[in-house]
Amino acid sequence: MPPILGAALQAAQAVNGERLWSRLARMAEVGATARGGVNRPALSPQDGQSRSLLLSWAAQLNTETSMDDIGNLFIRRPGRSPGSAGIMLGSHLDSQPTGGRYDGTYGVLSALEVLCGLDEAGIETELPIDVAVWSNEEGSRFAPGCMGSAVFARAAPLEKALEIQDAGGITVADALRDMRGRMPALPRRRDSNGAAAYIEAHIEQGPILETQRRQIGIVTGIQGTQWYEVEVSGQEAHAGTTPMDGRRDAFAAAVAIIESLRANLMLEYPDIRITVGRFEVSPGSPNTVPGRVRFTLDIRHPRPEPLKSASGLVAELCGPGSSNCSATFRRTVELPPALFDSGVVGLVDRYAGELGLRKMPIVSGAFHDALYLSRICPTAMIFIPCRDGLSHNEAEAIEKSDATNGARLLAAVATALAFQT
Amino acid sequence: MPPILGAALQAAQAVNGERLWSRLARMAEVGATARGGVNRPALSPQDGQSRSLLLSWAAQLNTETSMDDIGNLFIRRPGRSPGSAGIMLGSHLDSQPTGGRYDGTYGVLSALEVLCGLDEAGIETELPIDVAVWSNEEGSRFAPGCMGSAVFARAAPLEKALEIQDAGGITVADALRDMRGRMPALPRRRDSNGAAAYIEAHIEQGPILETQRRQIGIVTGIQGTQWYEVEVSGQEAHAGTTPMDGRRDAFAAAVAIIESLRANLMLEYPDIRITVGRFEVSPGSPNTVPGRVRFTLDIRHPRPEPLKSASGLVAELCGPGSSNCSATFRRTVELPPALFDSGVVGLVDRYAGELGLRKMPIVSGAFHDALYLSRICPTAMIFIPCRDGLSHNEAEAIEKSDATNGARLLAAVATALAFQT
Repeated sequence: MPPILGAALQAAQAVNGERLWSRLARMAEVGATARGGVNRPALSPQDGQSRSLLLSWAAQLNTETSMDDIGNLFIRRPGRSPGSAGIMLGSHLDSQPTGGRYDGTYGVLSALEVLCGLDEAGIETELPIDVAVWSNEEGSRFAPGCMGSAVFARAAPLEKALEIQDAGGITVADALRDMRGRMPALPRRRDSNGAAAYIEAHIEQGPILETQRRQIGIVTGIQGTQWYEVEVSGQEAHAGTTPMDGRRDAFAAAVAIIESLRANLMLEYPDIRITVGRFEVSPGSPNTVPGRVRFTLDIRHPRPEPLKSASGLVAELCGPGSSNCSATFRRTVELPPALFDSGVVGLVDRYAGELGLRKMPIVSGAFHDALYLSRICPTAMIFIPCRDGLSHNEAEAIEKSDATNGARLLAAVATALAFQT
Repeated sequence: MPPILGAALQAAQAVNGERLWSRLARMAEVGATARGGVNRPALSPQDGQSRSLLLSWAAQLNTETSMDDIGNLFIRRPGRSPGSAGIMLGSHLDSQPTGGRYDGTYGVLSALEVLCGLDEAGIETELPIDVAVWSNEEGSRFAPGCMGSAVFARAAPLEKALEIQDAGGITVADALRDMRGRMPALPRRRDSNGAAAYIEAHIEQGPILETQRRQIGIVTGIQGTQWYEVEVSGQEAHAGTTPMDGRRDAFAAAVAIIESLRANLMLEYPDIRITVGRFEVSPGSPNTVPGRVRFTLDIRHPRPEPLKSASGLVAELCGPGSSNCSATFRRTVELPPALFDSGVVGLVDRYAGELGLRKMPIVSGAFHDALYLSRICPTAMIFIPCRDGLSHNEAEAIEKSDATNGARLLAAVATALAFQT
């Protein structure tokens, strides 16, 4: 057996599924909600507690810890080449207000488990291996999300990020200062040479692996996402006295826009995902023809050109003169699709095969910190199934065997990469 | 000229358009809003003030006033047959929160102007003529509306009506007691023999007369109205990770129900009016597939069978198993169409012709107190145009000449009817 393959399989074998499972349960106590989920807003006291708990486990290992200016936390297991950029594994510990206990936590704790296994197996790697805990992935307290990874990848300026406020007027800078005050003192991360590669393990957050009865998703990239806010203005009128053909009904006009968008885009691009998640009708009286509707569009596709078509169609349908009502729109999010590095994705696929796991290629429907990391280093993700496809939900659940398999694959790939010279 | 026709035209001539116009302006000061409308909630202090002002004008005439147990106010000009049921004219003085100054007020003040003209012309009628001010027509403080006329017509029990509460927990009985305390003491209306006929003048509240350049609408009846509350339940899901064909999207299902209803009913019954005025999406997050939608349907038609078809279709489309989401519905209002008395409608039409007014038959799209009165006596309505069809709106406006024409027609018809023996 070639030595790298041998070390990688040894690292996979060293993963302790029981320890990982019990730590997932222990971490779920931090910010626990009554219905089995967690509430750990980004940079909150609960977020600080979850980091402190992680650091207490890291302190038992051969590691060096640091934090950068946006609060990203790094746990480094040194390699033989101390000055080198590391193989980075990670995810996030913050959650949605009624979030699930596995979401980002699984990626962080399986990465820590990789380090535990390497220590116990006495494996010395060439490159350091870093566990990264990205700040504010969720974006539900401070918008937008993936803040820590975006700043790390220089896709967002640090100064702007620090000024962002939550609903209570607290800035990211204030919240960071407060959280640091509640955690063990950590050195500031010095080296800014990024990462040699990045692998993020995550629950799928969708139903595909479960439906297809696969244990592992080999993530080839992340869908592109566009968000729009559309406002349609008509004329309030009496529902009883106003004939249908004399109405400027903002509800009917908004529905016509949405139906036309869906019909056209879904016909041409069957894989496109279009969601109207917010739809507000004004004045909201049963016997008044609505004068105004505001709605959001979330449009996603793995390839750029369907998204380009979508933005053209939104401009056409939501622009002036598209109906007897007037419409305006604003694009609030535009994230182009990310295509992961074929070398690292190939390695994940190969080791999933070596470990005998039932696998399939998959595109991530949700965005992740890996989106920004993929802009600065070879990146891949590993998905494990989650029950009923549920996520961002207190009922989020996974199987212990899937958790173990994902961590083993992560250990194998990280170790193989860390033997590069 | 036959004597009844002569008296009727004399009564029409006696209407003083300037006095009516200045009283409309004076009444608009009671509960005036900053943007030119009025806010006179039913049975509020403002409602009491408007009634007191009306009574101060009635006190200058040969009239007897009374109030019944639901607060309907009656101003009677006696005829030669004192015991007879009267010819009743009327409408209401309460308003929507941001209501217009003409809505029900026009019908009340033009009815009072009829009495003024008869007094000044010295016309003695056979039957008494009553001006009725119905309690709580709007229904925006105490639901449902047309409360006073429904109780008068014995279509709703008095005791139930008195127990209804506003949003602040105040009952109709409490509000009535308070309002009576702020008004001149009035005898309780004794005779319960209803009315010999009922004529209500009102602004159209729609655009038809203005569009057709007519001065008077001869109202032949009132559309039937059905209200529904529909709830569609699906499954919340992540907008990025959930494939379109695996979704149970409550928004998409609700829109499909509405589009199917509209398409089917409007094809078969071009005169039907269908309004979705309230539409609430939950949880209302841009990247979450909605798990629940609640919406209202307001469906109106002048004939019973399209409404019967509509209720069948609602039951079919909003019942279980109609889509991959589950839907339930509740009918909250069912008012069958009212067809007015052809004799009285014919009289209105004839006198509009005698007065040389450009007229057209019209069906009332909104409901009015005349709906309930038509169940107990021969009833008709007279519409005058309103600017841009606007009503229930502070910008509501009418022309002085139209106001005068409507009152003249009301005077003529009321006088002709009151000469019946």
